[in-house]
Amino acid sequence: MKATVLYGAGDVRIENVSDPAIQEPTDAIIRVARACICGSDLWPYKSMQPSDRGRVMGHEAIGVVEAVGADVGTLSVGDLVVMPFAFSDGTCLFCGDGLHTSCLHGGFFGTEEVAGAQAEAVRVPQADGTLVVLPVGEDDALMPSLLTLSDVMGTGHHAAVDAKVGPGKSVAVVGDGAVGLCGVIAAKRLGAEQIIILGHHPDRIALAREFGATDVISERGDEAVELVRELTGGFGAHSVLECVGLDQSTQTAIEIARPGGAVGRVGVPQDEVMPASRQAFFDNITVSGGPAPVRAYIDELLPDVLEGRIEPGRVLDRVIGLDEVPDGYRAMNDREAIKVMVSL
Amino acid sequence: MKATVLYGAGDVRIENVSDPAIQEPTDAIIRVARACICGSDLWPYKSMQPSDRGRVMGHEAIGVVEAVGADVGTLSVGDLVVMPFAFSDGTCLFCGDGLHTSCLHGGFFGTEEVAGAQAEAVRVPQADGTLVVLPVGEDDALMPSLLTLSDVMGTGHHAAVDAKVGPGKSVAVVGDGAVGLCGVIAAKRLGAEQIIILGHHPDRIALAREFGATDVISERGDEAVELVRELTGGFGAHSVLECVGLDQSTQTAIEIARPGGAVGRVGVPQDEVMPASRQAFFDNITVSGGPAPVRAYIDELLPDVLEGRIEPGRVLDRVIGLDEVPDGYRAMNDREAIKVMVSL
Repeated sequence: MKATVLYGAGDVRIENVSDPAIQEPTDAIIRVARACICGSDLWPYKSMQPSDRGRVMGHEAIGVVEAVGADVGTLSVGDLVVMPFAFSDGTCLFCGDGLHTSCLHGGFFGTEEVAGAQAEAVRVPQADGTLVVLPVGEDDALMPSLLTLSDVMGTGHHAAVDAKVGPGKSVAVVGDGAVGLCGVIAAKRLGAEQIIILGHHPDRIALAREFGATDVISERGDEAVELVRELTGGFGAHSVLECVGLDQSTQTAIEIARPGGAVGRVGVPQDEVMPASRQAFFDNITVSGGPAPVRAYIDELLPDVLEGRIEPGRVLDRVIGLDEVPDGYRAMNDREAIKVMVSL
Repeated sequence: MKATVLYGAGDVRIENVSDPAIQEPTDAIIRVARACICGSDLWPYKSMQPSDRGRVMGHEAIGVVEAVGADVGTLSVGDLVVMPFAFSDGTCLFCGDGLHTSCLHGGFFGTEEVAGAQAEAVRVPQADGTLVVLPVGEDDALMPSLLTLSDVMGTGHHAAVDAKVGPGKSVAVVGDGAVGLCGVIAAKRLGAEQIIILGHHPDRIALAREFGATDVISERGDEAVELVRELTGGFGAHSVLECVGLDQSTQTAIEIARPGGAVGRVGVPQDEVMPASRQAFFDNITVSGGPAPVRAYIDELLPDVLEGRIEPGRVLDRVIGLDEVPDGYRAMNDREAIKVMVSL
């Protein structure tokens, strides 16, 4: 089959690789119908050391079940399923706590160990715990929004939950990428009164406003901090969603939170240390977040997608075929596209 | 009157200073009956740059109201009161949220701006919001435990609350100082099933066990992390109380939290950045905490002290007079005393 293989920074190739096969009785194989390129794929795209072996990329997909292992009980060949970016057994103590990204038998797609989904097919470990059957056909108009449940919408939701967004709260979203935009959707959905987005790409800002952002700040650093304070009675935002992961954006996120507020961070931290630790301390700001247990959130978010109350699929502003994936990486890296959907 | 003045690292003097006077109509003057030396006083004791003017130290006290400003309505001359380490109006939006340490009209004792309580008397701004009348006489046997409500017991409680301690939880307390020991009391009081204290002073460890610690780890760094994991089924603790504030102790605190766990930090961070940020992220560990709003906690903790259910005053293992305060600093710094009470 054809798959997307990253061999080093900037070196994405579409290649023929072995078809995936059932390895464990809990596995399923799905034929990929839709996949995505993720903002987090751009980190290795920009920095990966050259590798002879390469890495099959991609961790977001909707697909059709082609084969199941002997122990798979809830899935049938032909089912249309959404695949969260992490696989999980659904039964361990961490899954029981709703933290499927720390599953004792779990892991991540598109890694050295488990091949990714920017491919014609993918092997899904722990298939019963991982995959969720969708009640639509694979040409349904909702496919883009359903696809975001595999990562980006669940990730925006996680940031909002960890930032303790709720009715009447002021919310600031740091970053206008696909996750930040889904964070705006999540904040609106959870009842936020004021949603300030910090970003500077006109097309993304426009979409953020349609999703419910009430204010836009395109300045950075101290200037942005000052403007958020002005917009929030001088105090800062109750809830801040950190959707970038850089040192500067994390510092800004902490600085714009009000005393007693919360920062939910979902941008993968690029540094080993967190800035503004003393400010977070003296203002009693809670910092939480991490890889989103999107599997846990699908039950809650799926009805809103199916009934059209949220439209996170609008962040997928470019649709390409598998052969065009290398150009899709380039387009996202050059900020030509917010987020790229791969249609197979 | 006599007061404790810090002029620089190691230079603590008892001197005659001007008597405090009502400056604002919301002030009260209290004659100090009991004060403390705090672990946080040791940071300037170890590192303060020499100063001609000096700083009147101390932020924990029980005293008797001697005078009140024209706008003070809830206090009368002669009342015995406990003084939280921060003053607060009790009416602003942050006080309304229970975050009195971020009061819009608040501040801290023992600073450049507001003189401290290791003195014969102290001026208390925002007296109505700050002071709590005690229903006992000033020679009551409960005075040491009541005195801890001004800081150290409320601070241990804050760490436990922010670390989300609850029934059935495993708890680790990093640090066996007075705050860590009060953290053990707080964890026990909130229903923790397992309480692991990380510390290596035999006298403090013994007291921790009496307060409810179920396990003791005297190793540090990676070894301590390994031992906590062994004691918690391989996962780490649900709740970690960081009661030191150093880079190494904070790193340990994060490393011993289980995925999805919480670190409540009350040790004042000595560094601008927080270590183990990526580990906290990938394990979805919540980090919160800060200066404890002890005023908010007095209503909850006072009955337990009055009825003898908790005995935090036991951390005050040395009692001295005001003239001996310089030696009290030395004794705490040399780890001869856990915490020193000044009896006037």
